[in-house]
Amino acid sequence: MKKINLSPTLIVGTGLVGASIGMALTARGVRVHVTDAVPSHAIVAASLGAGTTEPVDPARVRLVVVAVPPAALADVVAEALTTYPRATVTDVGSVKGTVLAKLRARDGLDLARYVGSHPMAGSQHAGPLTARADLFEERTWVVTPHDTASAHTVLDVGELVRLCGAREVSLGPAHHDEAVAEVSHVPQLLSSLMGGVLNDVPPEHLRLAGQGVRDVTRVAGSDPGLWRQIIAANRSAVAHLLHEVRDELDSLLAVLDGPDDEVPDGLTAFLQWGQDGVRQLPGKHGAAPGNLAHVVIEIPDTPGALARLFADIGEVGFNVEDLAIEHDTQREVGFLSVQVARPKAAALEASMRERGWTVRH
Amino acid sequence: MKKINLSPTLIVGTGLVGASIGMALTARGVRVHVTDAVPSHAIVAASLGAGTTEPVDPARVRLVVVAVPPAALADVVAEALTTYPRATVTDVGSVKGTVLAKLRARDGLDLARYVGSHPMAGSQHAGPLTARADLFEERTWVVTPHDTASAHTVLDVGELVRLCGAREVSLGPAHHDEAVAEVSHVPQLLSSLMGGVLNDVPPEHLRLAGQGVRDVTRVAGSDPGLWRQIIAANRSAVAHLLHEVRDELDSLLAVLDGPDDEVPDGLTAFLQWGQDGVRQLPGKHGAAPGNLAHVVIEIPDTPGALARLFADIGEVGFNVEDLAIEHDTQREVGFLSVQVARPKAAALEASMRERGWTVRH
Repeated sequence: MKKINLSPTLIVGTGLVGASIGMALTARGVRVHVTDAVPSHAIVAASLGAGTTEPVDPARVRLVVVAVPPAALADVVAEALTTYPRATVTDVGSVKGTVLAKLRARDGLDLARYVGSHPMAGSQHAGPLTARADLFEERTWVVTPHDTASAHTVLDVGELVRLCGAREVSLGPAHHDEAVAEVSHVPQLLSSLMGGVLNDVPPEHLRLAGQGVRDVTRVAGSDPGLWRQIIAANRSAVAHLLHEVRDELDSLLAVLDGPDDEVPDGLTAFLQWGQDGVRQLPGKHGAAPGNLAHVVIEIPDTPGALARLFADIGEVGFNVEDLAIEHDTQREVGFLSVQVARPKAAALEASMRERGWTVRH
Repeated sequence: MKKINLSPTLIVGTGLVGASIGMALTARGVRVHVTDAVPSHAIVAASLGAGTTEPVDPARVRLVVVAVPPAALADVVAEALTTYPRATVTDVGSVKGTVLAKLRARDGLDLARYVGSHPMAGSQHAGPLTARADLFEERTWVVTPHDTASAHTVLDVGELVRLCGAREVSLGPAHHDEAVAEVSHVPQLLSSLMGGVLNDVPPEHLRLAGQGVRDVTRVAGSDPGLWRQIIAANRSAVAHLLHEVRDELDSLLAVLDGPDDEVPDGLTAFLQWGQDGVRQLPGKHGAAPGNLAHVVIEIPDTPGALARLFADIGEVGFNVEDLAIEHDTQREVGFLSVQVARPKAAALEASMRERGWTVRH
């Protein structure tokens, strides 16, 4: 297979995502040109190593990456297809179906050269100043081929993803938009909903806020102007799912408003359903969930045994995910269960045996 | 004022909270006895420095701290008031009104010696193994006096809070329960709601999950058995607020289902409302929100200026909260705006001036 050469690449829009792509491609030897509606942003990005602000010969551009705010995406992609007649064009917006529909509604565009994509990183920051060449390392980057795209175009965008160190996932545009409604846009709206409710909470109550409410509402602190564009562009998928959320909320309210003796079971079922769902989420870098193992160590019934056991676990230096005491009803203490990543379990067992502890199977 | 001596203190229940209180009091010189329905937990707590498992003379106990699961609180507090006739008794449960109502429904209890309390830390862990003497340092600890409590009892519980290094906040029991519905129980249920929705999301969509949905759903991963008890005990305050949440969700759905031209404004208003609410939350250690200042530095129009500016900001070593470029429409680059804690702003300005930069007012 012929090696794909993406030089020169033009990046339009040098916010966090555009500037980081420029830095990653430059680091991999691609010649990158950057431009931005705000010239100072392009200059900042260039000073960080994202490319050059020098003009480029339109006829020679191989790849255009459009990284502008959601509402401007379709216009800028259309302009790029016209201005750079031989370039592959992609955008990195958060919603794919709307952009494609708008492009299809225009006459004379060579859509064989366009394939949208969506790197799953960095959306909440606005400016180029936090850009990093490794922003996309091991992150998912969705590529969304449509039926009029050429194979050549899809391969070019795949090469962009590869050079940025990301993992390519291929999904159709509508399919992608449904997925981001589920894992991004509806979570955002529920976070804003909880955030909004805090407006009516007196300050002396807010002093009781712990980490839980802070986590739930963190993304509600994001830029409303950006999220308005994203959610408006994915309105039908978001509304569909949000109606389901409302129905589930109504079921919970029926439990809370219902007869006393049905509250505990109804609440347990709801909370268990929530916990089950969270456990479906894969590990941060795409690892399968639940890939943890328990190593169970006997605690001798001697003074200070537990303190020595903690010290030894600390010294062998494994990354312990969780700890629990299991007890044998016949005995005073019992067993310490240590949770570690599955591939590390055998080594931890061996280390603890070496130090004289009894490890249970 | 006479110095309050809390020795000996008995801690009933040695999960994370009970064991951490024992460690904190022991470190401050209080003689602590620990007990637990699961004897191995008390032994673990004692081995970590939370006190001794030796029995204590009931007539001499000065303070009893009840740190058992929510459903058992009233029974254990009642038993403590009877068994330890001279002791002040407090509990550290997450809901206060229900416990007090159950205690009042019993005959012959000396409620002058009981005042409930609620340290805002550590609720999501179950066992004693993650206990720490500094778990409550600078955290809020709510004390909830009722009208039959003696002043002496309130002072004893205040001394407990002080010895644990926490900040005391006094709220009536019903007032407290309304506050935790707002800042803890309803956020928990919305997190579970989002978590539950993920059950129906296909795995290839879940691969697109980023930090946002993980934050929103983190607390939904907590123990359903514990949260069922907490929320059932605070059912009326939770249900009342959750009906309001449902009404706000309906308003959002009306925007999403409504006419096209009203979607952007309606969404912006909703998202702005959410952002405004999150900004009401005080800083993690109770600092007033928004206590940040901008230091604005001029970026000279010379090659490499911005890179040198970043390097200098890094070297002066201030904790930068945010960065932004501001641009003057008459000039190529403009200004770098650096956000730092307000008390540090003057020192950062001075350091940057020393290094030859122009700082704008």
